[in-house]
Amino acid sequence: MTSFAPRIDCLQYANWSEKIFREMRAGGLDAVHVTIAYHENFRETVLNIERWNRWFEQFPDLIMKGRWAGDVRAARESGRTAIFFGFQNPSPIEDDIGLVEVLHDLGARFMQLSYNNQSLLATGCYEAEDPGITRMGREVIKEMNRVGLVVDMSHSADRSTIEAADLSQRPITITHANLHSWQPALRNKRDDVIRAVTQNGGMMGFSAYPHHLKGKSDCTLRDFCEMIARAAEQFGAEHFGIGTDLCQDQPDSVVEWMRVGRWTKEIDYGEGSAAAPGFPPQPDWFKDNRDFPNFEAGLRDIGFDQAEIAGLMGGNWLRFFEENFIPRGFTAESAGN
Amino acid sequence: MTSFAPRIDCLQYANWSEKIFREMRAGGLDAVHVTIAYHENFRETVLNIERWNRWFEQFPDLIMKGRWAGDVRAARESGRTAIFFGFQNPSPIEDDIGLVEVLHDLGARFMQLSYNNQSLLATGCYEAEDPGITRMGREVIKEMNRVGLVVDMSHSADRSTIEAADLSQRPITITHANLHSWQPALRNKRDDVIRAVTQNGGMMGFSAYPHHLKGKSDCTLRDFCEMIARAAEQFGAEHFGIGTDLCQDQPDSVVEWMRVGRWTKEIDYGEGSAAAPGFPPQPDWFKDNRDFPNFEAGLRDIGFDQAEIAGLMGGNWLRFFEENFIPRGFTAESAGN
Repeated sequence: MTSFAPRIDCLQYANWSEKIFREMRAGGLDAVHVTIAYHENFRETVLNIERWNRWFEQFPDLIMKGRWAGDVRAARESGRTAIFFGFQNPSPIEDDIGLVEVLHDLGARFMQLSYNNQSLLATGCYEAEDPGITRMGREVIKEMNRVGLVVDMSHSADRSTIEAADLSQRPITITHANLHSWQPALRNKRDDVIRAVTQNGGMMGFSAYPHHLKGKSDCTLRDFCEMIARAAEQFGAEHFGIGTDLCQDQPDSVVEWMRVGRWTKEIDYGEGSAAAPGFPPQPDWFKDNRDFPNFEAGLRDIGFDQAEIAGLMGGNWLRFFEENFIPRGFTAESAGN
Repeated sequence: MTSFAPRIDCLQYANWSEKIFREMRAGGLDAVHVTIAYHENFRETVLNIERWNRWFEQFPDLIMKGRWAGDVRAARESGRTAIFFGFQNPSPIEDDIGLVEVLHDLGARFMQLSYNNQSLLATGCYEAEDPGITRMGREVIKEMNRVGLVVDMSHSADRSTIEAADLSQRPITITHANLHSWQPALRNKRDDVIRAVTQNGGMMGFSAYPHHLKGKSDCTLRDFCEMIARAAEQFGAEHFGIGTDLCQDQPDSVVEWMRVGRWTKEIDYGEGSAAAPGFPPQPDWFKDNRDFPNFEAGLRDIGFDQAEIAGLMGGNWLRFFEENFIPRGFTAESAGN
């Protein structure tokens, strides 16, 4: 299907601006999956979509709305970056399964079933107990499968993730995390979780967020690429890509919103601490979108071949997009792909 | 563009059911513009869209969602009826111009700028004074033009309608009304209003709602078609089609909702009266969707030629759909037409 080698970052949450859109172009990014909701309800999510619609109207030479896999190629051909929407929490669907299709219609392509905490659908990775996928969760996974909204378990707990991978009739994702065996952060994923996701055809994106890196902000590109090599050997390179979790230009108030939303009156430091509550500094090999080509150099240096590099830099995500964004029973053509 | 003769009803508001969908098929309707909001706010309108999504899922052999003109042909080819969404009031966009694009994305293709009363955008036909298009109305018309949401002035007052026709950079519509010179109902349209709409390339659909008919429920098909002949002679047959305003199987509580919504605690009888507050009986030549072919027979009897009949039965609406549902700057192909 894909005869070109796209560059895709399958998760960012930047403080969007013309500057960043220009840096995406400088980094040669054909597509970025952007988070448009952490704790937002439906109406608030629609306001975030409206804000993106204004950016698409203001910067038509830099970005375009991504709906289907074919838009990645359309973006490349027109020298733009395709922006695909996703949620890091199911809060946008509230308690209403009908909103799954409505939000897919508005462009949503990824939805996490939980974000750190218990949700109506699944358990988050910071909960003490993980009872697995809920009654509503099972129904929503079926509906997501039907319409082509991809399950993302990046911030979910282990049992919930493994159950989601098994229950889902279409492959699922961990868009942004690393190997727990490499850096034992709460958000990084244990082998049995990664196995459950990848053996069902799922995908995982590697994160450059310092809390997910060995040595945090001091992690080297070579360390990072060694982890990728280890993952590829263990689970198959075709199941991996990049999902940097880049939160560029965000004030620290935003990481606080991500962590506490409206669910507590206390401060929760998440992966940070009272001493270091803010965003950590990025590693010097991935400070912003312009550094995206560094991944390619790092992967080459560690010994990946050209086809593997093309897959890891975006080809694997593109294949996943081709197979999983389209409603069940539709072809690429009938869905406007 | 169109080499087939579609049958299109450009306004219905029935109490939808499998029975009615089957009657649409029996009447050979390729497309119906259905009202999905009278007084509903954004969230309530989304709930109505969700209800339609369930019907599309439940009855995939009878109906399909209509988004683009090409869906009329797709419906014909698959033996179904394409359902296009519209609003009889701008209440779904609330006070938020960004919802114009969001709702177009969800399938909305027609929006009235007012329904009987003053709205944020324009004046309704029951107000004593008509100060014309408002400040927000001018902005919303521009935005509707940009995204391909068609202005409908069926329930608006005269000055507002004429101003909308002149301000709009794309042709506008009166989806359901008749000639005031034929039946002087408040909702029927005076010649200068129809002229303003049609001379800018706009369209009007003829209504079979008894309050809009000469002799009301006793109006004959011949009377009705004579009015169409008069309109065609005066303004050009290519500017007209059918918009029956069929409210089949609705309980009288619904006409009350249409008339009073939440804007008054009193009863307002609209076109009815205290003595006859409910839906009037349909004329015997258009009781439900199965009677749609009667229009064709009536038009033939009154002397229209084959090409004019094809236009009036749906070809004119299809041409209008082709030109007006697509966002500015897009082609039929790039919009998925």
